[in-house]
Amino acid sequence: MSQADLNTLSLEQKASLLTGGGFWSTTAIPEVGIAAIVLADGPHGVRRQKDGTDHLGLHHSEPATCFPPAVAVGSSWNEDVAAKIGAALAKEALALGVDVLLGPGVNIKRSPLGGRNFEYYSEDPLLSGVLATAYVKALQAGGVGASVKHFAANDQETDRMVISADVDERTLREIHLSAFEHVVIEARPATIMCSYNRINGTPASENRWLLTEVLRGEWGYTGAVISDWGAVRTRPASLNAGLDLSMPGPGQYATQALVDAVLAGHVQESAVDQAVERVLALVDAAGHDDAAPDLDAHHVLARELAAECAVLLKNERGTLPLDRPSSVLVVGEFATTPRYQGGGSSHVNATRVDVPLECIEAHAATLGTHVIYSRGFDTQAEDGTALREAAVRAAGEAQVVVVFAGNPETEESEGYDRDRLELPPSQVRLIKEVAAVAARTVVVLANGGVVSLEDWHDDVEAILEGFLLGQGGGAAIADLLFGQANPSGRLAETIPYRLQDTPTWLSFPGEQGHVRYSEGVMVGYRYYETVGAPVRYPFGHGLSYTDYDVSDLRVRVDGPSEASAAVMVTNTGARAGKYVVQVYISTKAGPVRRPHRTLAAFAKVHLEPGETKIVRLQLDRRAFAYWDVLLARWVVPDGTYVVQVGENATTVLREQSIDLDGDGVAPPLSLQANVGEWLAHPAAGPPLRARMGSLMGGGGLDDDSDETHMVTSMPMIQILSLTGGAIDGDWLLSLLTTSHEEESTNL
Amino acid sequence: MSQADLNTLSLEQKASLLTGGGFWSTTAIPEVGIAAIVLADGPHGVRRQKDGTDHLGLHHSEPATCFPPAVAVGSSWNEDVAAKIGAALAKEALALGVDVLLGPGVNIKRSPLGGRNFEYYSEDPLLSGVLATAYVKALQAGGVGASVKHFAANDQETDRMVISADVDERTLREIHLSAFEHVVIEARPATIMCSYNRINGTPASENRWLLTEVLRGEWGYTGAVISDWGAVRTRPASLNAGLDLSMPGPGQYATQALVDAVLAGHVQESAVDQAVERVLALVDAAGHDDAAPDLDAHHVLARELAAECAVLLKNERGTLPLDRPSSVLVVGEFATTPRYQGGGSSHVNATRVDVPLECIEAHAATLGTHVIYSRGFDTQAEDGTALREAAVRAAGEAQVVVVFAGNPETEESEGYDRDRLELPPSQVRLIKEVAAVAARTVVVLANGGVVSLEDWHDDVEAILEGFLLGQGGGAAIADLLFGQANPSGRLAETIPYRLQDTPTWLSFPGEQGHVRYSEGVMVGYRYYETVGAPVRYPFGHGLSYTDYDVSDLRVRVDGPSEASAAVMVTNTGARAGKYVVQVYISTKAGPVRRPHRTLAAFAKVHLEPGETKIVRLQLDRRAFAYWDVLLARWVVPDGTYVVQVGENATTVLREQSIDLDGDGVAPPLSLQANVGEWLAHPAAGPPLRARMGSLMGGGGLDDDSDETHMVTSMPMIQILSLTGGAIDGDWLLSLLTTSHEEESTNL
Repeated sequence: MSQADLNTLSLEQKASLLTGGGFWSTTAIPEVGIAAIVLADGPHGVRRQKDGTDHLGLHHSEPATCFPPAVAVGSSWNEDVAAKIGAALAKEALALGVDVLLGPGVNIKRSPLGGRNFEYYSEDPLLSGVLATAYVKALQAGGVGASVKHFAANDQETDRMVISADVDERTLREIHLSAFEHVVIEARPATIMCSYNRINGTPASENRWLLTEVLRGEWGYTGAVISDWGAVRTRPASLNAGLDLSMPGPGQYATQALVDAVLAGHVQESAVDQAVERVLALVDAAGHDDAAPDLDAHHVLARELAAECAVLLKNERGTLPLDRPSSVLVVGEFATTPRYQGGGSSHVNATRVDVPLECIEAHAATLGTHVIYSRGFDTQAEDGTALREAAVRAAGEAQVVVVFAGNPETEESEGYDRDRLELPPSQVRLIKEVAAVAARTVVVLANGGVVSLEDWHDDVEAILEGFLLGQGGGAAIADLLFGQANPSGRLAETIPYRLQDTPTWLSFPGEQGHVRYSEGVMVGYRYYETVGAPVRYPFGHGLSYTDYDVSDLRVRVDGPSEASAAVMVTNTGARAGKYVVQVYISTKAGPVRRPHRTLAAFAKVHLEPGETKIVRLQLDRRAFAYWDVLLARWVVPDGTYVVQVGENATTVLREQSIDLDGDGVAPPLSLQANVGEWLAHPAAGPPLRARMGSLMGGGGLDDDSDETHMVTSMPMIQILSLTGGAIDGDWLLSLLTTSHEEESTNL
Repeated sequence: MSQADLNTLSLEQKASLLTGGGFWSTTAIPEVGIAAIVLADGPHGVRRQKDGTDHLGLHHSEPATCFPPAVAVGSSWNEDVAAKIGAALAKEALALGVDVLLGPGVNIKRSPLGGRNFEYYSEDPLLSGVLATAYVKALQAGGVGASVKHFAANDQETDRMVISADVDERTLREIHLSAFEHVVIEARPATIMCSYNRINGTPASENRWLLTEVLRGEWGYTGAVISDWGAVRTRPASLNAGLDLSMPGPGQYATQALVDAVLAGHVQESAVDQAVERVLALVDAAGHDDAAPDLDAHHVLARELAAECAVLLKNERGTLPLDRPSSVLVVGEFATTPRYQGGGSSHVNATRVDVPLECIEAHAATLGTHVIYSRGFDTQAEDGTALREAAVRAAGEAQVVVVFAGNPETEESEGYDRDRLELPPSQVRLIKEVAAVAARTVVVLANGGVVSLEDWHDDVEAILEGFLLGQGGGAAIADLLFGQANPSGRLAETIPYRLQDTPTWLSFPGEQGHVRYSEGVMVGYRYYETVGAPVRYPFGHGLSYTDYDVSDLRVRVDGPSEASAAVMVTNTGARAGKYVVQVYISTKAGPVRRPHRTLAAFAKVHLEPGETKIVRLQLDRRAFAYWDVLLARWVVPDGTYVVQVGENATTVLREQSIDLDGDGVAPPLSLQANVGEWLAHPAAGPPLRARMGSLMGGGGLDDDSDETHMVTSMPMIQILSLTGGAIDGDWLLSLLTTSHEEESTNL
C-alpha cells in the first residue's frame, strides 16, 4: 500500500490493522479492500483451529501431517530434511487457508530441562540457524510466510511471561541471537515472533534495541515483527520498540490505546504507517491454493525423514540391525501408544500415526520372526509391579528384547519446564530387570528433551534415541531396527551424566523474576569441552551400521579472516549410509575467553559402500569471529586457529592449524587503557618502555619483575599521577596521535 | 567541629580537607588549629613510609612487627587471634605516629587466583566478618582507627581500576557485602575504604547506592568513607556518592574541582560540610602515644599466633609430630629464606624473621636429632637439576625429610593475579623424587593463595599448610613439627583438585572491562557442596595431634526466626588442643536457590586431654535468611532447616532438623503474579481453584494435568484475556482485597 493509499485510512483504521482481528487472523477492513490473513501454529505440522481459540493446544485442530519436530530435525544435521518439511507444510497450510505458519523455533537449549526444547533444534546456534534457514526458504518458496520465534532468549517456560533473561551482550550475540541473525539474513522470513520474556529487564515486546536496532538496523530485516500470543503489555511502547502486529485479537482496547498515544504525541503517526505497511505487505503476499495436498505422500515423507533423525547411541555386539531373530519381545507402552510430539501450541492433530509394534510385526512377518508384546509399564498407573514382572518373565524367553521407554507426554510441554533428567523410576527399574534376564536388550527412547541414561546404560546392548519423530516415527524405528534404514542422526545436544553436570544447573530457571545466564557463551558442548568435564555422549555423537574413514584434511587460508576446508570421506563398510562431516574451530585468539571448540561448518553426505567423496566446506569470517563489546562488532583477531574435523565435539579425527591475520582492528588506545596495552602497542610501546625502564631502577623494563606485573593492569592515566609528572601526558598523547595515524594507514 | 565552627572555614578550606594533604596524611589548616592525621598501610603490620610516597610496597618503610597476614588469621578460625593482632598493631601504629591503619581487608575469595587473596580472610563472609570485627574492635580500642577495605567486590587485581564487577544484588548482599555489614554494625570502624573497581558499571567511588544508601542508610554507618589510593576519578561525583576523603594528596586540582562544583550547583555545600565533619571527627579522635612498643613481646606473640593458623592437611602413619628422629633432612629454599607475607601495599619491613631451618635446628639440638639441609631448588635459577639431584641423594639417608615448598614471592602480590594453581614444576618434581626415596616425607607449604596438591599429594606422608605466617612463622612451624604446638588451623577456603573445578574458572578475571559473577551466591564450598563436586580438601578441614568427639547436639527454636545450638565436645586424645565447632545450616526454604550448606556459627575451644565442654552457639535470623530482591530485605522463610555440626563443610558429624515459622512476609499478590502463586494463596486460592476447575473441563482442577502445569506459571492478568472474561478482573481484585486484609491481620 502506497503512502497515498495509507492516507485514505483513518488513524483508527490504521491502528486496528496492528492488532489481530481474531485469535488467528489479522484485521480486515472490507470497505477499503483490506483482507485478513490467517496465522496458525505449527513448526512441524499445521495446527489450524477453526473453532477453538487457544494457543496452548488445548482444543483440537484440523487434521494435518505431523512431521518430525525440531528436536528430531536438529538430530538429522541435514538441511534437506528441514527443507522437505518446509515445502510439504506450505502445501498443507495453503490448503487449510493458512498464510503464516508460526515457526520455526530457533531458541538455544541452554538447559535440558527447558519445557519447550522439543520445539528447538539444538544447543548450537550454527546448526539451529542452518536448519531453520532451509526450512524457512522452502516454506516461503511454497507461498506461506514463516514466523521465526521466539525472539529472543526465551529459553524456559517457568515464569516465561515475567522472567528477565539477564544475559551479557557477547553471549546474546554469539549464542542466543546468532541463529535468528542467520535466518533473517539468509532466508528473509515474512515475520519474526517476539517472545514473552524480558531481556535484561526490558520486555522483548518493548525492546527497541532488539526489535529495531539489531533486527532492522544491523541485520537489515524488512518483514513484520509480530508478538507471541499475549506478549504485548503496552501497545504504544511495543509499537515504538518496533513491534508491528500484536496478537491475538480482537483488540479494541489496544487499538484505542494506540490512537490515544498518537494523539498525545507518544507515538509518531509515521511509525504507525510504517507498521501498517509491513502488515499489509503480509496481506498482499498471501497466496491461495485450494489444491488438496497428497497426505499419503506426506505420510511417507514423514516416515523417511524420521529415519534420518533417530540417533543410534550405542550398539554393542552388533545387536542392531536385528538379524532375523527367531523371536523379539517388544516391551513398553510407547510401542503401542507412541510419543511422537510434545504438548502445547505445536501439537498437531496427525492424519495418522504409525504404531511401532505394528510396524515391527510387519517387518517380522517377512522374516519369520515371532513377535511378542508385553506392556511393561503404564504411565498412568500407580503401581506397575504386575506389568513389570510379566515383562521380565517374558524377557527370559526372547532372543532380543526391544524396550520402548521415554518421558510421559505430561512431562513435556509448552508452559512448564521439566524437573528431572531421569526417566520415570518405574521404567528404569523395568529396563534393568529386563536387561538382567534378556539375551540382548535394545532400548528405543522417546523424549522431547534429553534424558539421563545413567543407572541402566551399561546394562543394555543398544540404545536408539528417537526423541520425538512425528507421525511416521513408528515405521521409521522399525525400519532402523531391522536395517531397512541406516541410522545417520547425530546428537544436536549433549547427553550429560547428571543434571548437576550441566552448565546451567545452578541458574536455571532463575528466581524472583530473573534468570542469570551464568554460563555465558559456554552453552552445551562449549562448556563441557572447555572445562574438560566428561559427558555420557557428546554433541555430534551418532553411530551407523556402516563404517567411515575420514582423511586428507586440507585447509586453505582464503583471506585475512576466511578459510576453506576439504576432507575425504570413505564408506568402508558394507551398507550405504550418510555421514556428517563436522568441522570445529579451536582457538585462544583475541581478548575474550573462547570456547575450547566451536562448530564452524558441517555437511551430510550419502555414500554407497566403498564410495569416497571429497567434502568442501567454507569457513567464513564468522567461523573465526567473536563479538567485541568494546568495538560493538564481530572481530576476527589475528592468531592461530586449529581447524578440526570431529567425529563429534569431543573426538577430533583430523586437524590442521592455520594462522590468520584477522581484521586488524583493536580498541583505540586512550589514557584509560592499561599500561600493558600501551606497552604492547607497536608505535607507542617502545618509547614508553624505555621511559618506564629508566624510571623503575634505571635499567630496561623487566617484564618478569613484580613491579612490571603490578603496573601492567593499571590505567595509563594512573601512572601520570603516580609518577608525579615523570611520564608526561602531552608526550603520551603525541605517541597516541602518531600511532593512530599509523593505524589508519594500515586499514 | 560544630556547624558554627564550620562556618569560620572558607569553601576552599573545607574542600581542601576532603583530599589528602600528602601521600599518607590529611590536610592540615594550622591557622584554624586543624591538624593532619597519618594513615598507613598494614593489616598485619604497620607500613609507615616516612620518605617514600608509594602505596605499592616498592619503597621501604619503618621496621614493624609482621603478624600473620589475613590468609593465616582466616585459618585460625579464632577471633582472639585477630583481636590480639589488632591490639598489638594499635601500639605500634601509635608509636609510629599512625592514626588510621588501612585494614582489614574483607573481600571474599571468589577465585583462588586472586592476587591479593593473602590479604583476605576467607571464601566465607561470616568467617571474614567475625574475624574482621574482632580485629577492628581491638585496634580501635587501642586508639587507632581502622579502614575496612576494599568496598566492594574488589576480588581481583586484573584490570582492578577499570573492571566492572557485574553482580546481582542477592549475591552482593549475601556474599560480597555481608562481611562489611558485619564489621560496620558490630565494630563501627573509623573509616571504610572504597575500592578501585566498578560495580555493575558504576565506579565504587561514585556509587551512591553503595556508599550512602546501603552503608549509611541501611547499616547506620557514621564514620568516614575514604578512597583507595587513586580510586577517585571525578571528585564532585565521588562526594555526591558519599566519599568523604580522597586519597592520596596533595590534590589542588581535586580541591578546585570541588569548589567549582559547589559554585556551579552540582554539589551542595551541605554535603561538603557533612564530609568535612566526618574527616574532622577522625582528626579529633586521633590519639598519641610515643611509648615504644615491646617489639620482643610482639615477636613472641607473632610466633604464638602463627602456630594457631597453620593447617595440618594430611598426616599418615603418625608422621607428625616428629618423634625424636635420629636425622631430619630439610629441603627447600623457603627453609632458609622464608616466605611469610605477600607483596604490595601490605608489605611490612619486619623487625626480625624466624628462619625455619634455624628453629628446627634449635629443637633438634635438644633431642639429639641430626639436621641436614639441602637447598633442593632455587626460585631464581633457570635450571635446578643439580640442586634437586643433591637433595634426592640426601633424602635416601634421612629418617624424615621435610620439604619447604611454596609459591615464589613474585607470583603473589597486589597488582596482578596468579595464572596457575600448581606449585612451580621444579618443586613438584623435587617433592616427587624426594618422596620416592625418603622413608617419610613431610611437605610444609608457604603460599598466599591456595595451591593444588595434585601430582604429589599421595606421594608424601604429611602436609602442613602454613600459607603466609608472618615473621614468627619459622619458629611456629618448628614448634608444630616437633609437637611443641598442636595444629588447630582449619581451611578458610576450599582446596580444589583442579583450577577447572573452581566455580569461577570460566568467568575470572573477566574480559573487555567486565567480570561476570557467574557463580552467584555459590562461592567456594557453597558451590562444591551444592553441585556435589569432589574437592581435595574441603573448607573447614584441618587435623590435630589429638582426637575429638562431638556429641549431643541440641537445637532449640528461640523464636519464629531464631534458634540456638549446644553441642558437647571432648578431647579424647593425649594432647591439649583447640577444636573448631562449625555449625552449618542446610535448607531449601524460600523462593530462591539456597546453597546446600552455609556456615552459620563457629567457635574455637581449648580442651585439655580428656576434657569436655558444652559449646553454645546462637543462630540469629541471619543464619536462616536470604536476601529477597523483590521485598528488598532479608527474609527468613517458613520451612525446615537442618542444623548441622560439621567436621568440615563436607562431613556432617551431627544434625538436627527444626521447623521455623519465619518472618511471615511474602510479596503482595497482584494481577502480575503467577496463577500458581494465586492458587497457593490461603484466601484467594480456593475460590479461584473452583472457578478454574469448572472452566477447564467441568470437574475439579487437576494439579497433575498438563493444562494445570501450563497455566501455573502464567501471570494472572494473562488468564483474564485468555478466558475472555470467564474469570473476572473485579472478582479477582475482591479476592485480593480480602486476602490482603487477612494478611495484615496476621502480621
